[in-house]
Amino acid sequence: MTKKKKTEASGKLKVAMLGGLYEIGKNLAVIEYEGEILVVDCGLGFPDDDMLGIDLVIPDVTYLKENEDKIKGIVLTHGHEDHIGALPYVLQQISPPVYGTPLTIGILRGKLEERTYETEPDLNVVRAGQKIKLGCFEVEFINVNHSIPDAVCLAINTPLGMIIHSGDFKIDLTPVDSPMIDLPRIGELGNEGVLLLMCESTNAERPGYTPSERLVGASLDSIFFRNADKRITIATFSSNVHRVQQIINTSEKYGRKVVINGRSMQNIVSCAMELGYMHAAEGTLIDILDIKKYNPEQLTIVCTGSQGEPMSSLYRMAFSEHSRIELSPKDVVVISANAIPGNEKLVNNIINELFRKGVNVIYDAIVSDVHVSGHACQEELKTMHALTKPKYFMPIHGEYKHLATHKNLALFLGEKPENIFISEVGRVLEIDSEGARFNGTVPSGKVLVDGYGVGDVGGIVLRDRRHLSQDGIIVVCASVSTESGLLLSGPEIYSRGFVYVRESEDMMDDLRELTAGIIEEFYDNADNDYAAMKTRIKDETAKYISIKTKRKPMILPIIMEI
Amino acid sequence: MTKKKKTEASGKLKVAMLGGLYEIGKNLAVIEYEGEILVVDCGLGFPDDDMLGIDLVIPDVTYLKENEDKIKGIVLTHGHEDHIGALPYVLQQISPPVYGTPLTIGILRGKLEERTYETEPDLNVVRAGQKIKLGCFEVEFINVNHSIPDAVCLAINTPLGMIIHSGDFKIDLTPVDSPMIDLPRIGELGNEGVLLLMCESTNAERPGYTPSERLVGASLDSIFFRNADKRITIATFSSNVHRVQQIINTSEKYGRKVVINGRSMQNIVSCAMELGYMHAAEGTLIDILDIKKYNPEQLTIVCTGSQGEPMSSLYRMAFSEHSRIELSPKDVVVISANAIPGNEKLVNNIINELFRKGVNVIYDAIVSDVHVSGHACQEELKTMHALTKPKYFMPIHGEYKHLATHKNLALFLGEKPENIFISEVGRVLEIDSEGARFNGTVPSGKVLVDGYGVGDVGGIVLRDRRHLSQDGIIVVCASVSTESGLLLSGPEIYSRGFVYVRESEDMMDDLRELTAGIIEEFYDNADNDYAAMKTRIKDETAKYISIKTKRKPMILPIIMEI
Repeated sequence: MTKKKKTEASGKLKVAMLGGLYEIGKNLAVIEYEGEILVVDCGLGFPDDDMLGIDLVIPDVTYLKENEDKIKGIVLTHGHEDHIGALPYVLQQISPPVYGTPLTIGILRGKLEERTYETEPDLNVVRAGQKIKLGCFEVEFINVNHSIPDAVCLAINTPLGMIIHSGDFKIDLTPVDSPMIDLPRIGELGNEGVLLLMCESTNAERPGYTPSERLVGASLDSIFFRNADKRITIATFSSNVHRVQQIINTSEKYGRKVVINGRSMQNIVSCAMELGYMHAAEGTLIDILDIKKYNPEQLTIVCTGSQGEPMSSLYRMAFSEHSRIELSPKDVVVISANAIPGNEKLVNNIINELFRKGVNVIYDAIVSDVHVSGHACQEELKTMHALTKPKYFMPIHGEYKHLATHKNLALFLGEKPENIFISEVGRVLEIDSEGARFNGTVPSGKVLVDGYGVGDVGGIVLRDRRHLSQDGIIVVCASVSTESGLLLSGPEIYSRGFVYVRESEDMMDDLRELTAGIIEEFYDNADNDYAAMKTRIKDETAKYISIKTKRKPMILPIIMEI
Repeated sequence: MTKKKKTEASGKLKVAMLGGLYEIGKNLAVIEYEGEILVVDCGLGFPDDDMLGIDLVIPDVTYLKENEDKIKGIVLTHGHEDHIGALPYVLQQISPPVYGTPLTIGILRGKLEERTYETEPDLNVVRAGQKIKLGCFEVEFINVNHSIPDAVCLAINTPLGMIIHSGDFKIDLTPVDSPMIDLPRIGELGNEGVLLLMCESTNAERPGYTPSERLVGASLDSIFFRNADKRITIATFSSNVHRVQQIINTSEKYGRKVVINGRSMQNIVSCAMELGYMHAAEGTLIDILDIKKYNPEQLTIVCTGSQGEPMSSLYRMAFSEHSRIELSPKDVVVISANAIPGNEKLVNNIINELFRKGVNVIYDAIVSDVHVSGHACQEELKTMHALTKPKYFMPIHGEYKHLATHKNLALFLGEKPENIFISEVGRVLEIDSEGARFNGTVPSGKVLVDGYGVGDVGGIVLRDRRHLSQDGIIVVCASVSTESGLLLSGPEIYSRGFVYVRESEDMMDDLRELTAGIIEEFYDNADNDYAAMKTRIKDETAKYISIKTKRKPMILPIIMEI
């Protein structure tokens, strides 16, 4: 299927994902050849619903720590959180050089400022079209289209052959302010021979093509035209620089000033402006403090909150908690985004509140084309396969259903089932001149970040949080004289998150009596086992409560011996 | 806009919703005229994401309890949980007669068996097309199409004029096994004059028409045809009797036996069979114990779990926890349902697991027409308005965005803004010969059901559960001699859901020292305030932990005085 250029190399190429398989986010690929390691991306993930209280999830990089001396570099495909968001944590543990395009490195630089590092991070700018040599790997950065500028796919030349890592991409034939994905170069590499294609799978379920970002521009133009008498507020992903650019362009066309609101939006806009990825005429962007100088119909507000995030700019506007902006029936609010799975209810809450304020709300359920995806749909994925003509294929970046559907697409294109590898996190794909096969694993997993704690919350703590969240806790507390074996105080019953104690006095009385009996019986009998008494308190309290209420609170017996 | 037939009546008509506004579910309408009350539906709702540990939500029916003697009856539009599911609880508090169509009453009867009642519930069967007299109200049951058979809308004749309550409906021109919605009768009533239309709004955001249930039948036929060599498992809503009927029909056509699996599915199928709403040839339905007598390709399994519910039939199959059914690449699984908002991730989990088993999974993202909605889209809602030509209109059954969008549809049809009333739960719409207006409220709210407890979990308990779920709890426990003021035991620090104690011994030591200091200082000074000491322990412990970990566990100080 491919012209083999480099079958002379006798070493083994190993490819392992430390994240991005069976999940959305936490993308990190490890590519290893004979003692040299290249890392692609280092992203964060968002906690599952059952990871209560967890802020975010990063990949377990034990394998990278143990092999730090082998790492030649970390190359980044683009500046989204799920591709660079774990670096602020990981660079506290290892400090290899990092390579990315100007905007990617610019955004990363901002993130790194929030933490301190023993070794100053070694950040290096590479432009699309350039190649860098990292150990035995030669890495070429190739321009692609995505929902953030300066995204690339990577052509990684190894002694065994070429690996194409797609990064996240779409094929946009009419991109905004940036060149179209470099399909000719990708095709050229395909003709030279691609050993392995690692291709993203986010939209593998969706038939057809993802529409061009320009479609949103046309849709925005029509919204601006029809709402010439109103203030227009648009919430979108802060990293979608092209989207914000189109909003600025449309505002300028219709003679509006633009306010950028929300911290992450302001950060990215100023970074993008500085690096030349965004532009506005002198005087178009105004400070929020100056909005009173203009009539509502002269204003556009671009803000965060498209995912319904509590305390985001749009959330505060919707719930009248914003100090500068009060919405009314004179406002139009456009939600120029899709709800990421799990955020549907949060977004819904905001939409309902906006309707209650009489705002004209424009969102995907009622108007199409206010958002387009940044990921390749099926025909685009097929194009990537058709151009690269890979010998081996590993679908990446997706839940299992996406990976499996992507595999089906590859089969449809004629790739052989034995050459397609659906891997899992930590599993090693080994390639040599003989062929390719799974062989072993490297350490991997999810590290949970909760407040300042990185990795100090694990399975037991989460299990307790889930237990506590469902039916609360009951603390049984008593002081006992070890001499006399008599109860000196208590047992007292404290509950939190279980039931209104005032309305359940009878139950609490019963529990006091029940547990007092168990404790007294224990101290009457010197042979008894202290742990067994506690277990008995737990079991009998739980049983009593379950029969009475059909609930299962956590039960914590505390017996203080004096 | 309407021919007024009955302007002679001098009384006031009051309409209040005790649920179903600004929410999906918990539908309950109260219609009152001069001391006589008619109730329409009595449904349950599902808990919001922040109602941790709550099983379900029912309407606060204080107003009905206080006015029980005035209630002439509860009339039901159909047998879905959000329309009848609160009755098992409400009939323990009040016992007016209940009226519904045969299947609705049949399903309700099954639900009531799980609880006990002082007064035997008074259930009455009324068929579509019939009228009943309840006090001053004459209620006509009119056939509509919906995702459960035997659904009706209600024409409620009051001394002041006609109210049309739509129930839940769609216009299905080719329904399965049942007549089309009785549009002629609805139009006839519209010509006679409709005072108030109360119309559901679930799909008010969706343009066009909801497709016919038969479309799913065609889709199923094609799936059966293409998978003649595999076992076919189909998960759907258990109450969707027509869907199950189509699966049975298709199975018979292709020579397959049908297994009904999952408790709620079995309950509804046997109820529907008994009442003649479902039919199967002799021998088509087989017991799950008999599946080994057939080859996989001779079998269809109809099961629960289309919402990804843990422990449902499909869930157990997907996660290899089903005692009778093991899925493999020889299986096709069809998810013939849409994910209700909030259930997306649960459904996704199952789809991913099925893919991992190599099952061919057919679901809405990859194949259209495996499910259709049971609710009217915009053109159908417009049809209802155009036929009834109401004087007043109240959109019901929806979040605010649905109600507001439905109002916009009515405005587009030429209804006057002053005649459209977006109400809220508990608010009273008052209508008399002079006009209509909001006037006052009746008691209303959400009653939370948790285990056996109905209404015993409220705001404080939920707040505690949320707090516990995020960062767990720390219990500070000490025994103190009131005579000497000396610490007899402790302080000991217990934590649950906060952090691994073994890895945080230093922090626990610091906390012991910190709290011991506060307690000793307190007993050194006889003037001190016991409550103030506890507050100080809480505050200083919280502060210490926040600085160290950026977390906010609940803190429970217990000081036992001896």
